[in-house]
Amino acid sequence: MTDLGRSGEITPAELALATRNRGMPLEGMRHDVTPVGLHYLLVHFDIPALDPERWRLRITGAVEREVELDLDEIRSRPAKTVTATMECAGNGRARLEPRPISQPWLNEAIGTARWTGAPLGELLAEVGIGDAVELVFTGADHGIEGGEELDYARSLPVGEATRPSVLLAYEMNGRPLEPQHGYPLRLLVPGWYGMTSVKWLTRIEAVTEPFRGFHQATAYHYKQSDDEPGEPVTRIRPRALMIPPGFPDFPERRRYLDRGHVTVTGRAWSGLAPIERVEIGVDGEWHEAELDEPIDEWAWCRWSWPWDAEPGEHLLACRATDAGGESQPLEQPWNVQGLGNNLVQQVPVLVR
Amino acid sequence: MTDLGRSGEITPAELALATRNRGMPLEGMRHDVTPVGLHYLLVHFDIPALDPERWRLRITGAVEREVELDLDEIRSRPAKTVTATMECAGNGRARLEPRPISQPWLNEAIGTARWTGAPLGELLAEVGIGDAVELVFTGADHGIEGGEELDYARSLPVGEATRPSVLLAYEMNGRPLEPQHGYPLRLLVPGWYGMTSVKWLTRIEAVTEPFRGFHQATAYHYKQSDDEPGEPVTRIRPRALMIPPGFPDFPERRRYLDRGHVTVTGRAWSGLAPIERVEIGVDGEWHEAELDEPIDEWAWCRWSWPWDAEPGEHLLACRATDAGGESQPLEQPWNVQGLGNNLVQQVPVLVR
Repeated sequence: MTDLGRSGEITPAELALATRNRGMPLEGMRHDVTPVGLHYLLVHFDIPALDPERWRLRITGAVEREVELDLDEIRSRPAKTVTATMECAGNGRARLEPRPISQPWLNEAIGTARWTGAPLGELLAEVGIGDAVELVFTGADHGIEGGEELDYARSLPVGEATRPSVLLAYEMNGRPLEPQHGYPLRLLVPGWYGMTSVKWLTRIEAVTEPFRGFHQATAYHYKQSDDEPGEPVTRIRPRALMIPPGFPDFPERRRYLDRGHVTVTGRAWSGLAPIERVEIGVDGEWHEAELDEPIDEWAWCRWSWPWDAEPGEHLLACRATDAGGESQPLEQPWNVQGLGNNLVQQVPVLVR
Repeated sequence: MTDLGRSGEITPAELALATRNRGMPLEGMRHDVTPVGLHYLLVHFDIPALDPERWRLRITGAVEREVELDLDEIRSRPAKTVTATMECAGNGRARLEPRPISQPWLNEAIGTARWTGAPLGELLAEVGIGDAVELVFTGADHGIEGGEELDYARSLPVGEATRPSVLLAYEMNGRPLEPQHGYPLRLLVPGWYGMTSVKWLTRIEAVTEPFRGFHQATAYHYKQSDDEPGEPVTRIRPRALMIPPGFPDFPERRRYLDRGHVTVTGRAWSGLAPIERVEIGVDGEWHEAELDEPIDEWAWCRWSWPWDAEPGEHLLACRATDAGGESQPLEQPWNVQGLGNNLVQQVPVLVR
């Protein structure tokens, strides 16, 4: 349990979030594509109740012609399927000290799904967005944050929104989205942290000035204090995670395994560049893991490393480096909202 | 946030469990049948990796003939579908003071699914269990608990195991079980708390003496101290839960709603007897809710109550009573393992 920053009591609000939101048990990484019910889930406010018959997507603002589309119209457009690894920007938050108060993820806010939908860029080309600098995506989930009553909304620069892998997604793993994953339609932005892929999408607005809504301009920024503007959180930083080897005890979840050969395995991904290298640490000594090809351009790749486990207590770790030279920190870099913490995972094991 | 017992810091072990296990966001109660990815999930040890080609179910012990069945043999038997509400025996644990250390559920360890499988009683009649008093069900999930290395195992008296609604289930909501719900085969015992419905089933043993394994004889008992034997936890106690009305703030999840008419709605269930009555409390005054028929014999029923919400802070509550006269307590009855806590739910709201 070295993974939890211990400073400060977990608050009732954090526990209420932790029992609603859903981390993926790390042994779920054995699947190339995460079963729907194992994928991580973060719901910002409540899951909205949307009637697919009455639901519409409106495309408005600085467009040549405004349109309103129903689900059949979107489903009848040319479809594309993208397998993408998604991660919550807050993954790792509960390992920061002091711990920022929000959903207290340790390592498990991850999942990889096959998303099917209509490429957004093709639709935007049809409606015409000549003067726009950003697209603002508004979801139907509604609540109060930062002293304001609002629908969840995020924006993307035109260049990012029109990448060919950005989808208006209506299927996950070959079936209609389940309600909690954005039914009937969500945005999917491979390579960016999950807050970008707005669920329960109702409106896309082309704007000629950068969007300043709460979830764009205030939330999701790397900053050291609430007073500074900070740097916006965008793409997923590199991360490797291992499936904790052996078996656990209950309720502490310490790991036990038998001496001898064990294949340590896991996944690695980055939204910045392809993964180039995964290293496995055993008691502070680093070894090169074997890396498989990624499943898709924006999806994780499997890695493995053969370990001859000798009796005693050991501390395992793993660290990914991407083709841009970005790697994972060995010490906790802190920020006030607890975002993008890709600190190296550490797994203590007892070999018998 | 009146729902959380505040005594004692949440431990790292509890947080590690809370980010693996999955509660159902209560707005999920708007669905008669819970989508697979919204159903609650508790995994005792790890999710095992079972190869369906090599997996077998063995029926052994005090039977006239031992059998070993593969998945096709089980799927080719006459099938039955049962819609059942399942609840974790530990639901409500984190509302106890002092808080027992295990998965810290508040209220959300629930779900209702359509389970399809082969009725167990028919299979047992074929293999012959004349002298047996219990059936022991062993799953493939493996770990250490109570100082012992073991597979998770639970038993049922013959009379319970042969009820016509007890299934060897291989489908959930019309699709093969997802790995975390027991793939390829699990036991389904409608009306009993979830620990009874053993997942990743590998063996059924007929025994002539009551089973004394850890998860049967030590765990899952109502007791005031670890020294006493206690009473075994069996069927689901009555409970009503409401979908918190209005919308939340983030991250505190306080509820806000507009003045005027609002339909307060939710679900109620009991594994002991049909639900007969649901009452809604508003600031300590109780009102009778309207009750729909249950979806199936062992499934929840919907209830609703029209409220003319006046501005100000209010405390909403709901309470179920079943046909056996069992109701929900208004004060916390404590037990050492934190089981069966069906204390009435309370939802503070601010009406504007």
